[in-house]
Amino acid sequence: MTHPNTVLIGVPGGRAVLDTPALLIDLPALERNIAAMAAFARDRGVALRPHAKTHKSVEIARRQAVAGAVGICCATLGEAEVMVAGGIAGVLVTSPLVTPSKIARLIALNQRQTEGLMVCVDHPENVRALAEAAAGSGKPLEVIVDFSAGHNRTGCATPEALSDLVDLVRAAPALRFVGIQSYSGNLQHIPTRQARSEAAARQIEILRGIVDGLRSRGIDVPIVTGVGTGTFDLDPAAGVYTELQVGSYVFMDVDYLNALRDGRNGPPFETALFVQAAVVSLHAPSHVTIDGGLKCFATDGPKPEIVRGAPAGSLYQFSGDEHGRVLPPEGGTLGLRLGDRLEMVTPHCDPTVNLHDVYHVVDGDRLIALWPVDARGRR
Amino acid sequence: MTHPNTVLIGVPGGRAVLDTPALLIDLPALERNIAAMAAFARDRGVALRPHAKTHKSVEIARRQAVAGAVGICCATLGEAEVMVAGGIAGVLVTSPLVTPSKIARLIALNQRQTEGLMVCVDHPENVRALAEAAAGSGKPLEVIVDFSAGHNRTGCATPEALSDLVDLVRAAPALRFVGIQSYSGNLQHIPTRQARSEAAARQIEILRGIVDGLRSRGIDVPIVTGVGTGTFDLDPAAGVYTELQVGSYVFMDVDYLNALRDGRNGPPFETALFVQAAVVSLHAPSHVTIDGGLKCFATDGPKPEIVRGAPAGSLYQFSGDEHGRVLPPEGGTLGLRLGDRLEMVTPHCDPTVNLHDVYHVVDGDRLIALWPVDARGRR
Repeated sequence: MTHPNTVLIGVPGGRAVLDTPALLIDLPALERNIAAMAAFARDRGVALRPHAKTHKSVEIARRQAVAGAVGICCATLGEAEVMVAGGIAGVLVTSPLVTPSKIARLIALNQRQTEGLMVCVDHPENVRALAEAAAGSGKPLEVIVDFSAGHNRTGCATPEALSDLVDLVRAAPALRFVGIQSYSGNLQHIPTRQARSEAAARQIEILRGIVDGLRSRGIDVPIVTGVGTGTFDLDPAAGVYTELQVGSYVFMDVDYLNALRDGRNGPPFETALFVQAAVVSLHAPSHVTIDGGLKCFATDGPKPEIVRGAPAGSLYQFSGDEHGRVLPPEGGTLGLRLGDRLEMVTPHCDPTVNLHDVYHVVDGDRLIALWPVDARGRR
Repeated sequence: MTHPNTVLIGVPGGRAVLDTPALLIDLPALERNIAAMAAFARDRGVALRPHAKTHKSVEIARRQAVAGAVGICCATLGEAEVMVAGGIAGVLVTSPLVTPSKIARLIALNQRQTEGLMVCVDHPENVRALAEAAAGSGKPLEVIVDFSAGHNRTGCATPEALSDLVDLVRAAPALRFVGIQSYSGNLQHIPTRQARSEAAARQIEILRGIVDGLRSRGIDVPIVTGVGTGTFDLDPAAGVYTELQVGSYVFMDVDYLNALRDGRNGPPFETALFVQAAVVSLHAPSHVTIDGGLKCFATDGPKPEIVRGAPAGSLYQFSGDEHGRVLPPEGGTLGLRLGDRLEMVTPHCDPTVNLHDVYHVVDGDRLIALWPVDARGRR
């Protein structure tokens, strides 16, 4: 089925009459974000391998590559398959893949991908299984050893365990040890810059000890990867990381804006992701109902923030699967009519994007293109 | 791309080696739920028009029709388009459609659907727009007038406003007034049966007054529709509703199980929806990490409940987009290995289904079929 908004591409004023709800990308803002992070990485002399879990889009990955990214990170094997099929080089799967089904798919992908594929490991049993599968395939597999930097999700829990695992990888003829991952997911949303900075510094010193320890044993560690948008300028300052796997900077969201608002120079990235919804019921004087609910916005973080189409201070409340309520600012009125459009900054951008099939790429009042959320739902 | 689990269909033991995470339907439980609600409706002499917002599946809608349903409810026009394309009769769109784009699509769908299409309205302006569009199409449009039964989302706010709107619909040559909707979304999750029962009774008496008022004016009200799974047996007892638009009963979830657990005879429906995930990191003695996170489970309700694969009392915690932590029962151990499978009852079923592209239909240890979540993402 053709998307109902296809007919509006390039039509002046098309943004005002979109079929709703619609996930919007402000293209100039996206381009500035991509350029700003690329310039930052270049200035600091670190590589940029942005995380595709945020956008799940081949088109955005391509633009990141054109701006200088060395590759792309993926949270799932399905995302990696989509990126490889889209011609993206330097793909790193940032989570361990352990079941026989996933390992078979990974090895098949490694056969297809001629431009770089890496996977993270954190357990000897998984290393042995990958080594055996890669040996059977006749093509070596590049492996990054994951260190748990306090988020307690994946990764070796101690420097000793990590060091042993590096040895195990290096001993496997079909595996290539290419580096260390240490992603501090737990730091990204610490609310003040000072607290984030101190916590990041402690974790980086542990990581420095690990990398120095390996190098002092004569082990080459070409890649030290990690770093999210919330600490993008803190981690590289220490000179331990060789590359950044920032994701959310392309879009930003209510969460990240709040986290970065305390920085001295204000948020360094712009909001580029919005949802447009329409008023569908003038239900009561107290509020109106719009056609965006919990199948349109992620519910694991703050609420959507209304930025266009309603008086400043108007509030969004969830009202079921497909609807939200808009409340007027205290003491004010909304003055909205049926069909009026509102635009909102999204809560947590990654899971919000995951609820949509299509990006509506806008520039001013025009719809420029529809981009598929290519890897949505791919595991 | 072929789904990686396609090769496991019909293979003995296939359920134990699925590519994960996977959304499962226990087929015998689904069939018993479909049959039980159909029998209940038949016994009470009310029609059954189940809500497709829960399952978004043509296959399940077909099975509901075979069991005796008169049609299907849809929360979005996109769901209705998918159901009509799938040959489902008696489609009711339960939310107002007000923008020019949606009205154009609705009228086009009404032209295609020969087996019944209805839409809800709650505002005079919308009635006038629909009347004009339907007149232009040359085919009448069937309209249900929506009453707000306390959930404050859509619907006329007072009986007087509703009565006036019915008159407006009846005065439009291209519209057919076919009934009233009053869906008490706010009642479905009131935790005790007694409190739910009292609240439902109050709302039903208001609805009875409305319907009696219209009929005393000589107006035919063939359809009085509403009723969710949480009040499925309370509302029909009053004899006002002519049909039920229950949705969640096909699957059930942690929320509904909790809400129905206080019934004297225990929950009348069975859990038929699960998520299977695999252990991907034996991170620490305190917990393991599995490959199902907030892009796999809805986060607007309770947490997933582990029912298979881990000791009783093990707890699930969200750990980011793609991962969850499993904690052992107090004082116990997990005894899990890499790749071990766990199965969980889902939080809020509707938005959980909305995160998946495919149902894995299982019967015992076998994967029977993959059914697409046809209307996922359709607005």
